[in-house]
Amino acid sequence: MNLSVSKMSLFSAINKVSKAVPSKSNLSNADCILLDAAGDELRLVANNLELAIECIIPATVLEEGKICLESKSFMEIIRKITDDDIKISTDKNYGTTIKYGSNHMDLMGKETDTFNDIPKFDYKDHLDISEYSLKEVIRQTIFSTSENEANKTLSGELFEIKDGILRVVSLDGQRVSIRRIELNDDSLNKKIIVPGRSLNELFKILGGETEKNVTLHFTDNHLIVCFGNTTLVTRLIDGDFFNIDNVLTKDYETKVTINKKELYESVDRSTLFASDGDKRAIVLSMKDSVMELRMKSTKGSMEENIEIEKEGSDLKIGFNPKFLMDALHVIDDERIRLYFVSPKSPCFIRDDADSYTYMILPVNLGAEG
Amino acid sequence: MNLSVSKMSLFSAINKVSKAVPSKSNLSNADCILLDAAGDELRLVANNLELAIECIIPATVLEEGKICLESKSFMEIIRKITDDDIKISTDKNYGTTIKYGSNHMDLMGKETDTFNDIPKFDYKDHLDISEYSLKEVIRQTIFSTSENEANKTLSGELFEIKDGILRVVSLDGQRVSIRRIELNDDSLNKKIIVPGRSLNELFKILGGETEKNVTLHFTDNHLIVCFGNTTLVTRLIDGDFFNIDNVLTKDYETKVTINKKELYESVDRSTLFASDGDKRAIVLSMKDSVMELRMKSTKGSMEENIEIEKEGSDLKIGFNPKFLMDALHVIDDERIRLYFVSPKSPCFIRDDADSYTYMILPVNLGAEG
Repeated sequence: MNLSVSKMSLFSAINKVSKAVPSKSNLSNADCILLDAAGDELRLVANNLELAIECIIPATVLEEGKICLESKSFMEIIRKITDDDIKISTDKNYGTTIKYGSNHMDLMGKETDTFNDIPKFDYKDHLDISEYSLKEVIRQTIFSTSENEANKTLSGELFEIKDGILRVVSLDGQRVSIRRIELNDDSLNKKIIVPGRSLNELFKILGGETEKNVTLHFTDNHLIVCFGNTTLVTRLIDGDFFNIDNVLTKDYETKVTINKKELYESVDRSTLFASDGDKRAIVLSMKDSVMELRMKSTKGSMEENIEIEKEGSDLKIGFNPKFLMDALHVIDDERIRLYFVSPKSPCFIRDDADSYTYMILPVNLGAEG
Repeated sequence: MNLSVSKMSLFSAINKVSKAVPSKSNLSNADCILLDAAGDELRLVANNLELAIECIIPATVLEEGKICLESKSFMEIIRKITDDDIKISTDKNYGTTIKYGSNHMDLMGKETDTFNDIPKFDYKDHLDISEYSLKEVIRQTIFSTSENEANKTLSGELFEIKDGILRVVSLDGQRVSIRRIELNDDSLNKKIIVPGRSLNELFKILGGETEKNVTLHFTDNHLIVCFGNTTLVTRLIDGDFFNIDNVLTKDYETKVTINKKELYESVDRSTLFASDGDKRAIVLSMKDSVMELRMKSTKGSMEENIEIEKEGSDLKIGFNPKFLMDALHVIDDERIRLYFVSPKSPCFIRDDADSYTYMILPVNLGAEG
């Protein structure tokens, strides 16, 4: 291999593909990035077998070839080079020379034969969506995927495409997050479970621009995400996702409209007293036009009031403050609506257009209540 | 106690004094900040017995009194309050209520009788210096204090005031850092050793403005630093500081003038190969008008060249790259001068005005050299 490439585009590509380098592996070249120079392109690949990322950048290729370079060192080397023109060449024993200006570094590469290159598929179905929309639905739901790997399906997110709507759902034992976006195309019908870890990495490397599109391709076992010069392939999670429609109800006894920022800041302050094992509940008492928020622990107590508009009965209910904050944090509306049935039934936060629904189970207040 | 105070000035004061709260202590109220309301002021104090910090802010005091509040909780509470007007009141059992708008928090304070208040002294000698100059000399020397507590004097910095010059010296086993600044006043004659830890905290809370002055007061065992509404008292370290003048020589065999940024970036890149226990040396070879920099380890190697102006003999010498970088990092000059005697003698980096001198011991290259 012998090529010349721009530092900026090389560093950006390494930064993206490195998200798929496995943290632990027994394979000798698994912690590597594959460099594959051919034609007038340099292709970079990393693959942890659940997730693979490929990035293709323009290069002046004097001699085609492949090499595996240890990801962390390679990224640090390219980061610290200040010249924009970088030349990379290899010899038959995987010795690799990186030249910049009149200076150079030598390091040992590894063989490429056993490297798991990114899998290639014959694409059939696909969906186009803006980078912005995809990045937003991930941000707005990823926090309630379950970290408990006992139930594999809950560590992923449901992507359900039907009747021109993409619905993304995540849930753990205490809460459900749902986002719905309208698509330009209503011909596709799909229901897949995407690993939360892969979505987290996708979130980091997606640009998030509204004018740029991402293409999603589907196979039986993989989701392929193509954007710009980057391709991300993730395995899907087998199994059936929890049937969420059974727990979604639009009935309520109490409906509260409240300023989101005031509620968020008040719940945030309550966490000052929640440190005894994170189990302290914040108690919300809705009465007439006021929500009273109370938190009490061995450290002290907080008591605040926020003006609300209320329909229906008065109600007193307790929540884990973190779960309320996670949902409030990703809602952009200035005023939000909370729906309650009883102190022992889940609370729903949703907008009238059903573009988001957050369901949170209450904490049993017991004698405290 | 019953008072009203601005959130901004209270938070800024807590932030400053909290730097002197001990991380570990057996005293029940040692992890606290003392609040002392009297006249039209609120005085905040923290004291870890080596270092004490006091901050005085304006307050509307309805009832004078004192209370001790646990530092971390108190800081977090005040940080998270968004109203600017904060009211603090206490009852006889140390119960403390913090009111903001129509909301409030309650927490338990502690008794103030056993709290170590900031010590008071009759000041005699003093020195005025700008916040900027004091902050700069700390930044430019603090990195070479020794963390090895076996030799207590080396964990501090020498502040030597003589003939209208302040000289600040720090050293560990491998290097010496010296900064000299001219004072407006040449009457004072002092030689004290200030704990590095206290200087680190002082550095964090000093504003660093050129127009604002700091007053240093001296007692036999303490240095008192007064600036704005803040007073910092640190114990001094007993003992004699290493007599540095014996090792400072102006003789040299090789004098090199070089671009500081180029040298810094090249040494920085060499650290990519220095990870085997931080012991790898960067080898500098000065020959004619070029400095060649080489680093080699099991991970790979680097070879770079930088143009220099050289007086005297050619020379090849090895250094711990971190020590070179620490010194280069705090020198603001674009071009710097390095003075060498031999591959086994220390290197000096100094300007012609002697405002700074950095001495670094070389690494024995042995067979490698």
